[in-house]
Amino acid sequence: MPMRITGLKDIIAGLTSAGRGVFEVASTRRQAQLGEMCEKLLDLKGEASVIVLAHRILELYATLEEAERIEFFEMLRDRFGADEQRLGAAISDYQSSPGPDTAAALADAAEAPRQELFRLLNTAPNGTAALIEMREHLLRVLRKHPQLAPVDRDIEHLLLSWFNRGFLTLRRIDWQTPAFILEKLIAYEAVHEIRGWPDLQRRLANDRRCYGFFHPALPDDPLIFVQVALVKGLADSIQTVLDSAPPAADEEVEADTAIFYSISNCQRGLSGITFGNFLIKQVTDSLARDVPGITRFSTLSPIPGFRRHLETWLATAEGAAALSDAERELLADGPAHWLDDEGKANAIKPLMMHLCADYLLNVKRGEEPGDPVARFHLRNGARLERLNWLGDRSEKGLRESYGLLVNYVYDRKTVAQNHEAYVNDFEVVCSSALRSLAAKRPKRL
Amino acid sequence: MPMRITGLKDIIAGLTSAGRGVFEVASTRRQAQLGEMCEKLLDLKGEASVIVLAHRILELYATLEEAERIEFFEMLRDRFGADEQRLGAAISDYQSSPGPDTAAALADAAEAPRQELFRLLNTAPNGTAALIEMREHLLRVLRKHPQLAPVDRDIEHLLLSWFNRGFLTLRRIDWQTPAFILEKLIAYEAVHEIRGWPDLQRRLANDRRCYGFFHPALPDDPLIFVQVALVKGLADSIQTVLDSAPPAADEEVEADTAIFYSISNCQRGLSGITFGNFLIKQVTDSLARDVPGITRFSTLSPIPGFRRHLETWLATAEGAAALSDAERELLADGPAHWLDDEGKANAIKPLMMHLCADYLLNVKRGEEPGDPVARFHLRNGARLERLNWLGDRSEKGLRESYGLLVNYVYDRKTVAQNHEAYVNDFEVVCSSALRSLAAKRPKRL
Amino acid sequence: MPMRITGLKDIIAGLTSAGRGVFEVASTRRQAQLGEMCEKLLDLKGEASVIVLAHRILELYATLEEAERIEFFEMLRDRFGADEQRLGAAISDYQSSPGPDTAAALADAAEAPRQELFRLLNTAPNGTAALIEMREHLLRVLRKHPQLAPVDRDIEHLLLSWFNRGFLTLRRIDWQTPAFILEKLIAYEAVHEIRGWPDLQRRLANDRRCYGFFHPALPDDPLIFVQVALVKGLADSIQTVLDSAPPAADEEVEADTAIFYSISNCQRGLSGITFGNFLIKQVTDSLARDVPGITRFSTLSPIPGFRRHLETWLATAEGAAALSDAERELLADGPAHWLDDEGKANAIKPLMMHLCADYLLNVKRGEEPGDPVARFHLRNGARLERLNWLGDRSEKGLRESYGLLVNYVYDRKTVAQNHEAYVNDFEVVCSSALRSLAAKRPKRL
Amino acid sequence: MPMRITGLKDIIAGLTSAGRGVFEVASTRRQAQLGEMCEKLLDLKGEASVIVLAHRILELYATLEEAERIEFFEMLRDRFGADEQRLGAAISDYQSSPGPDTAAALADAAEAPRQELFRLLNTAPNGTAALIEMREHLLRVLRKHPQLAPVDRDIEHLLLSWFNRGFLTLRRIDWQTPAFILEKLIAYEAVHEIRGWPDLQRRLANDRRCYGFFHPALPDDPLIFVQVALVKGLADSIQTVLDSAPPAADEEVEADTAIFYSISNCQRGLSGITFGNFLIKQVTDSLARDVPGITRFSTLSPIPGFRRHLETWLATAEGAAALSDAERELLADGPAHWLDDEGKANAIKPLMMHLCADYLLNVKRGEEPGDPVARFHLRNGARLERLNWLGDRSEKGLRESYGLLVNYVYDRKTVAQNHEAYVNDFEVVCSSALRSLAAKRPKRL
Repeated sequence: MPMRITGLKDIIAGLTSAGRGVFEVASTRRQAQLGEMCEKLLDLKGEASVIVLAHRILELYATLEEAERIEFFEMLRDRFGADEQRLGAAISDYQSSPGPDTAAALADAAEAPRQELFRLLNTAPNGTAALIEMREHLLRVLRKHPQLAPVDRDIEHLLLSWFNRGFLTLRRIDWQTPAFILEKLIAYEAVHEIRGWPDLQRRLANDRRCYGFFHPALPDDPLIFVQVALVKGLADSIQTVLDSAPPAADEEVEADTAIFYSISNCQRGLSGITFGNFLIKQVTDSLARDVPGITRFSTLSPIPGFRRHLETWLATAEGAAALSDAERELLADGPAHWLDDEGKANAIKPLMMHLCADYLLNVKRGEEPGDPVARFHLRNGARLERLNWLGDRSEKGLRESYGLLVNYVYDRKTVAQNHEAYVNDFEVVCSSALRSLAAKRPKRL
Repeated sequence: MPMRITGLKDIIAGLTSAGRGVFEVASTRRQAQLGEMCEKLLDLKGEASVIVLAHRILELYATLEEAERIEFFEMLRDRFGADEQRLGAAISDYQSSPGPDTAAALADAAEAPRQELFRLLNTAPNGTAALIEMREHLLRVLRKHPQLAPVDRDIEHLLLSWFNRGFLTLRRIDWQTPAFILEKLIAYEAVHEIRGWPDLQRRLANDRRCYGFFHPALPDDPLIFVQVALVKGLADSIQTVLDSAPPAADEEVEADTAIFYSISNCQRGLSGITFGNFLIKQVTDSLARDVPGITRFSTLSPIPGFRRHLETWLATAEGAAALSDAERELLADGPAHWLDDEGKANAIKPLMMHLCADYLLNVKRGEEPGDPVARFHLRNGARLERLNWLGDRSEKGLRESYGLLVNYVYDRKTVAQNHEAYVNDFEVVCSSALRSLAAKRPKRL
Repeated sequence: MPMRITGLKDIIAGLTSAGRGVFEVASTRRQAQLGEMCEKLLDLKGEASVIVLAHRILELYATLEEAERIEFFEMLRDRFGADEQRLGAAISDYQSSPGPDTAAALADAAEAPRQELFRLLNTAPNGTAALIEMREHLLRVLRKHPQLAPVDRDIEHLLLSWFNRGFLTLRRIDWQTPAFILEKLIAYEAVHEIRGWPDLQRRLANDRRCYGFFHPALPDDPLIFVQVALVKGLADSIQTVLDSAPPAADEEVEADTAIFYSISNCQRGLSGITFGNFLIKQVTDSLARDVPGITRFSTLSPIPGFRRHLETWLATAEGAAALSDAERELLADGPAHWLDDEGKANAIKPLMMHLCADYLLNVKRGEEPGDPVARFHLRNGARLERLNWLGDRSEKGLRESYGLLVNYVYDRKTVAQNHEAYVNDFEVVCSSALRSLAAKRPKRL
Repeated sequence: MPMRITGLKDIIAGLTSAGRGVFEVASTRRQAQLGEMCEKLLDLKGEASVIVLAHRILELYATLEEAERIEFFEMLRDRFGADEQRLGAAISDYQSSPGPDTAAALADAAEAPRQELFRLLNTAPNGTAALIEMREHLLRVLRKHPQLAPVDRDIEHLLLSWFNRGFLTLRRIDWQTPAFILEKLIAYEAVHEIRGWPDLQRRLANDRRCYGFFHPALPDDPLIFVQVALVKGLADSIQTVLDSAPPAADEEVEADTAIFYSISNCQRGLSGITFGNFLIKQVTDSLARDVPGITRFSTLSPIPGFRRHLETWLATAEGAAALSDAERELLADGPAHWLDDEGKANAIKPLMMHLCADYLLNVKRGEEPGDPVARFHLRNGARLERLNWLGDRSEKGLRESYGLLVNYVYDRKTVAQNHEAYVNDFEVVCSSALRSLAAKRPKRL
């Protein structure tokens, strides 16, 4: 790049030496000091010196323990909320003459000043990363401290705006990528653990693809990434995908199917901000354009809620009555035994496939499927395609779904219409094979 | 860069072919169609397909004439404002139990849905640039159509958040910069016109500096840029700065002073969003760090309001009485004559210097100086240093300020304290020489 | 780029302070000093300190006037030629036992030490550029000083090896290219002068292409570049190509033909090292791959030797007899008149087209065509396609070839076979139309 | 980078389809075919089609087994040597009229055409890498096939010219470097094995530095790299350097000494081309400039020839008589025992330190030190500074030098003068402590 970029970091020194005197605050307690500094920051709004003060506040914040952070968030709630008098007046104005102008003034008055405070903190070097971390802290305590929800709402509101899809870039991640970024894939992978650098390298070989969304304010840190295997036919086993030997460096890869086998969000502080649907869409389009021969797009997905659902149901009277003794016994053995005992596996397989298909198609949370992964892909317009018996033999796979995996197929011709059918009527588009599986209870053992 | 970036543009084709059917709308009039498409876009919120629909809306918008655009903005005001019922309910809730939660809910209800609409439009390829242009259109008609102010308020609110200082990068612009960007300097320069490429090249020679702020969503388009001359001593003539011969390519530049002689905002659609103070601060710090020998930072600035002020005042009874006939006659000649007639120039100079110093120090708009450039630099912490007689001999310089220019000095040791003095008490920090000039009326001619 | 590159320039300071004492030489005359420094440099071979000494020698060389440079080259010839004794011994060894080993030893002994000297000078910062300039100096005086040929042969030998095609990169040059490089196009364009930046910008619009070869040691300096117009049909007028309005920024360009209308070598010091044939081949392949719709590749070329040839021939008895009086008169008027007088132009046109076709097909220098541009393109495998009457109305075009231009077509299917036919039998592949033109003398006027 | 680079690879397709017919050769045996293709390549010299043919030859060469490669090299020696007749004539010319011109003609005639052949092969995509590999093949068989030396001489001659220091770039390698390049460090490290990615990451932490030389034709492949530890004081143990915990990410590193603890050549095919001295010099200068506080530069080096030398000497009568029985017994135990037995270690230490100092200072190969690492650093101008008892406790360290390591100090003030003293008089610059160690035989045990 022919232009040199001067980092904000470099600037701090300069600003600091010039401006130090201005920001010295007499308070002795950090908490009080933080409060004063935040008020000062709002006063400075629009001045170049906000950068230094924002930097100081974030430095001081970084020294807080969890209990102090809760105090800090409470202060943000109480001291940096909307001004009651101003809000009251704006309400009166609006009520006496409702219309776009008074509504706009009311919206202004209702916006908590802490939103502006967050915007000002963002001017500090690495301010965006610091705010994301601050929200991570907040989310960690939010369940126990629901009174902090208004603060979370305000940060989330800003992050939603800043991490707008229009500001993200899709980048391919491969073996040419700096080690500094690759290292983060290992740390962030949430679905199928990356077991060190050789495992990572295999996942980045020339029959694999990895893409992530990045935001300009976090150039070295992916927001989300997806891992794809280019294979022949619809993959039915995650172990085959992960452990197959990579092709030679110059070997032509002959594949007709792209298998999305892992998708991981990276930033807990961005929880609630959706990237996955955009990512799948865009990667699908990229692959269709760039990799000749790829004509099918599918996931190889976990069914994380299946086992928990089944065990709960079996504990009910209805569930208890639904299985024969032989079936209940095989099930009680647990899937770890099925792995080694082909006889047992074959015996229980038809029942498990039926139960799982039934779970995916008929168990609901409200009007939507009970399984969270199913909700995600069906909403995106995918089709429930195929169940894979013992597709995930890992401890986690057995624990969550008795080792079953499912393929959601993204058919570019029908994805928009599937999506519409889902969001309008919660219709689950499904292959006939899977529908049959769900419909017919196999003979009792 | 080892990562390949897939542009959004490439993606549109893919999305389009898959999704076209979904968005076809039966309306015949573009305006009605736009309204329906915008409502559909809000419905789709969170779906990957928003990108395509947003793109379509912006394409359709781009075909509107000014009158149609006004209709479009009115539709945004009327159809995408806050929901009255929901807002009414939120007001009731808040009034019956005021507190952070009900205030937050009220803020949510008061936010006009068009804000979300703008956020969704931003997901389109080049969406950010399109929204900036949309605001430019809006500002162009706002004075005549003040009823559109609530719409402008909402776009501005978003742009303020998105163009937060934390997302900007400072880049040096020089002769290594792509022609595509340099071309824009020529177009955007607002203070001292750049007269073609040779003039531009001279302004980018090794005794000059140019820096701009860029936003990642507009990588080839500066938001603002400043031009600096590295010289010996405080420059007193803009023509000398612009027309002096450049040093040889490998000549060592011996300079002790950085003269900020031009600062131009580039995006009309970002009007109201302040970058200049940050830019001056950061460039000052960069130069202090990177260019050995530079110990003084000063502007060479126009006084755009001086002549207009003076002529208005002279038309009053007080003004008429203030000058002798000889003085009034010289003044009536106009500055174009002074350029060639040293006798006249010397005769009128003391009076003009006094009147201009008086203007800068004593003429106010509210509590602040009447001159807009003075307001900007004084608020930033600069010191009014020196008046320069016939410092700008251009037609524009003569027309605006009888050719006078002024230096505002940025002294890094006192800039923070000057700034505080200004924002707290509107104190104008000023050299003693300039203060004397203002204080003492020269002998009448 | 994630790696930081430390420039050699930065290193000089370090080396210098440490090593200065070593290289101080007592000689008073620069020439003698240069001789001693060069001998010292050969002694140092392989030591890190060669970089500093090489830098010093080049600095000192840069201060020489032309007469001194000639002395310097003579010193290189006399003092840094092959060692006579060693060479004599190697000859004896070879003669007494001829074979690969003694031949290799003889080749070693015969290589002039100045070759190694040039290799050592190349280690200096910007050493390659300095050596190219040194050869430019040498070529400038070589005709008058043929005794310097052995020195030129040695530099050329090295440059041929260093500027091997395998080390060059082809880069597209467009409006995104740094101004620093674009500026050089204006300076180097040798065929159709670039008249400032607006002209340059038009030549880089989206219906034009420009490509250059670059060498890593001269990253900002093209070695050669070619300019291409994407048009409909075979272009017949260079003025139309240069002066047509560019398409709008986002206008789709519908073109079926790529016209190579200018190709310029940039470095005189690389004279004798051929890049043009590689460049045309590679650009043709790039365009065929990247620009859909382009199916024809052709030049629009000058015929620089035509008028000179014709005038010489007309001065012979044969030539004098070949034209009628009327024809001779029209010709004597000169082409500048034909531009404005359609009658005269139409009258003379058939004759001129015939004479020019005859020139291109039948006038030889040895076995090859007499016209240098024809030799270049025909050797590359192009086909002589079409003559264009008044295709170049510029002063230069009229002066060189009465304004005629010619298209050489590069047909990718036949280019290899044409090339073979040319290099084996000097066969000139030609369209039948042009062959007819040459064959048949039009009726005398 | 604003310019797009079209790779040669892309071009092959185009050239190939157009040119295939031309190069088909009727021979059935690959060897004969290769011979014909090489002759054809020399014929084509200067034509664009050489790229394709060169590519084909290298493809075919890549399929050869070792025995076939030897045949191929013999063909290069016999069929592509200097033309005897032409050489004979050039000798006659030179002898009848010796002078620069006839010497130059003789040099031309003596150059084997295989040099030009190699230059033409270099035009193929990745040609340079292929030629380096070809030379690696050749070197592997050269000892057994000394008749191939003239071929090796010609490749080496070219590589020396192409890998001229002036064409290399120094790049820092760190954790931001693409994994693709880092992987090669692990493969190439020749001194202290890198035990996987975590070990590599520790060597690239912020108290370490790694630099390599790169050539533009091999942008992803270092030619040589050096590893440096920034520490306090002169390091005395390689295990301490390798195994110490890295500092925290943002910890300030306080170091006064740069320890060069490993330097590895990467390309066997570039054997005989020296990079190490340039690299040390340039890295020293870079660190002195960029890392404040670093005032001392030293190696921590192996003494690879010490043990072999000592054992040989002890087998002589003189050696046998030089040690007491107790000493001989301790020595016979071997250093592995000393590691665990402090008593034995302390007993033998004075003798071993003396013998090693004596080895470094007094054992010669010709006029230079017998130890190859000593020759390298002393020739570069370093000073023999200190012996470190059990500085390398690895199996390799014990095997080569009884675990002793040595520091060579690069003192920037004296390095040039040390170098001169060495190359002129083979003077070994040495600390007085080490000189005393060598001078005085400790009391016999």
